Amino acid sequence: MIKNQFSIFESELNVRPDDIDMFNHVHNSKYLDYVLAARYEQMDKYYGMSWESFAEMGYGWVVTKVTISFKRALLMGDVMLIRTGIIEMNEKGCTAQFEIINKKTGKLASDGLFDYAMIDLSTKKACKVTEEMIKKYSI
Amino acid sequence: MIKNQFSIFESELNVRPDDIDMFNHVHNSKYLDYVLAARYEQMDKYYGMSWESFAEMGYGWVVTKVTISFKRALLMGDVMLIRTGIIEMNEKGCTAQFEIINKKTGKLASDGLFDYAMIDLSTKKACKVTEEMIKKYSI
Amino acid sequence: MIKNQFSIFESELNVRPDDIDMFNHVHNSKYLDYVLAARYEQMDKYYGMSWESFAEMGYGWVVTKVTISFKRALLMGDVMLIRTGIIEMNEKGCTAQFEIINKKTGKLASDGLFDYAMIDLSTKKACKVTEEMIKKYSI
Amino acid sequence: MIKNQFSIFESELNVRPDDIDMFNHVHNSKYLDYVLAARYEQMDKYYGMSWESFAEMGYGWVVTKVTISFKRALLMGDVMLIRTGIIEMNEKGCTAQFEIINKKTGKLASDGLFDYAMIDLSTKKACKVTEEMIKKYSI
Repeated sequence: MIKNQFSIFESELNVRPDDIDMFNHVHNSKYLDYVLAARYEQMDKYYGMSWESFAEMGYGWVVTKVTISFKRALLMGDVMLIRTGIIEMNEKGCTAQFEIINKKTGKLASDGLFDYAMIDLSTKKACKVTEEMIKKYSI
Repeated sequence: MIKNQFSIFESELNVRPDDIDMFNHVHNSKYLDYVLAARYEQMDKYYGMSWESFAEMGYGWVVTKVTISFKRALLMGDVMLIRTGIIEMNEKGCTAQFEIINKKTGKLASDGLFDYAMIDLSTKKACKVTEEMIKKYSI
Repeated sequence: MIKNQFSIFESELNVRPDDIDMFNHVHNSKYLDYVLAARYEQMDKYYGMSWESFAEMGYGWVVTKVTISFKRALLMGDVMLIRTGIIEMNEKGCTAQFEIINKKTGKLASDGLFDYAMIDLSTKKACKVTEEMIKKYSI
Repeated sequence: MIKNQFSIFESELNVRPDDIDMFNHVHNSKYLDYVLAARYEQMDKYYGMSWESFAEMGYGWVVTKVTISFKRALLMGDVMLIRTGIIEMNEKGCTAQFEIINKKTGKLASDGLFDYAMIDLSTKKACKVTEEMIKKYSI
């Protein structure tokens, strides 16, 4: 279950046919891409500081750790709701939790945690998250 | 330009962040996946004989040839309109044309042709498209 | 560091150009695919009971949980060594640890754990791992 | 059949399990990635002017058109030989032909043509291929 430290936001996404693997369900690694797609949308839509805003300032967000559980398979044609929320954010980065819900059944397909660090796009090295960024994302 | 032999249908799709490659634009092979996603949606929505209907009868559609031109790069965050239409269909398969339009600019990102054959899902061999199927798809 | 409960096996794999993302390094979700590729090879080569042997008996292995840390980015052209080993296996499934080493530098790129369950390919439901399978994989 | 205008080079590549799709064969768009992987290797190994050399000079190669035929499916575990060769190269770019051979059967899995243009990595615009580059690649 999602711990409500900060706001939880929701994105809707369709399974794309090329996401399907030899088991005729969504391939496990694609769930990481779904969470990225949801965060990308939510950064722009809800936090008022989009992926592109960071890029223009010379920053990017990279994943440093993922813990993900696969509960129920998503299938061809399925629509999912991806709920994510920050549970911790400081100058070193942030941790976001997520849940992927099968829209048709309302059941949990996958959940877990992503740790992110911010990098300088020119050096590709980790750099400090500023107070202003932390404030914008602590909603 | 799309030749109007049969109906042209349109699907809307978002670039997904994992589609972006080392050039910071959508990776070339992903455009094939976009066309598949559009055809999948349109089979269900417009032709009244979905991918799943074929699967239930033991059939699947596989690509036998693709000709694709890349005109203008799609970027992170872009939304596209994918227009496809059958230009020929017979017992051996069908040929569909497509155009991918960048929704924001209205400009052509990519166009081309896909040849498809129908296979028997148990043998994985090509098999004859029936008159009924041809009729349903000749709209 | 890898805990030596059972044998550790090593596979070598090249980064494929399509694995590269907007940061000009290997996209995070691809590391899961690398571990799958290594396990697939090692099942056949070292355990004497390949993915295909399981498939012929009507079984497949699916991932139920992943914990993965990203330590140092892999880049275009890099070659990696993927070391994996089972740390626990019982009738419910198994847990495998992995390390991905950058061959050129000898440094750790990523490590973590995969939990797997065995499914019946016809029902797609989890099923019991047999004594014989556990024995073959407990080396 | 490959037309022997310039040299034909060969790369060997394994199907990766994540390349498999809902039909339990290699997904169509992955063949484009295989050709990219082969060209990338061959640029370094045979032409003496690698992808990285171009990148250091501020250039990259992008695909402008692909014609690809799918003849026989590649399956999980298959090994392929990818033969490519330039058939035309001038200041506007080049055209390379390719064949993907199933190593086990020796049979043709796929063949076709790729058109490439060279871009300036900072502007992402097409730019002129120099005489020196054309000479290096006209072997």
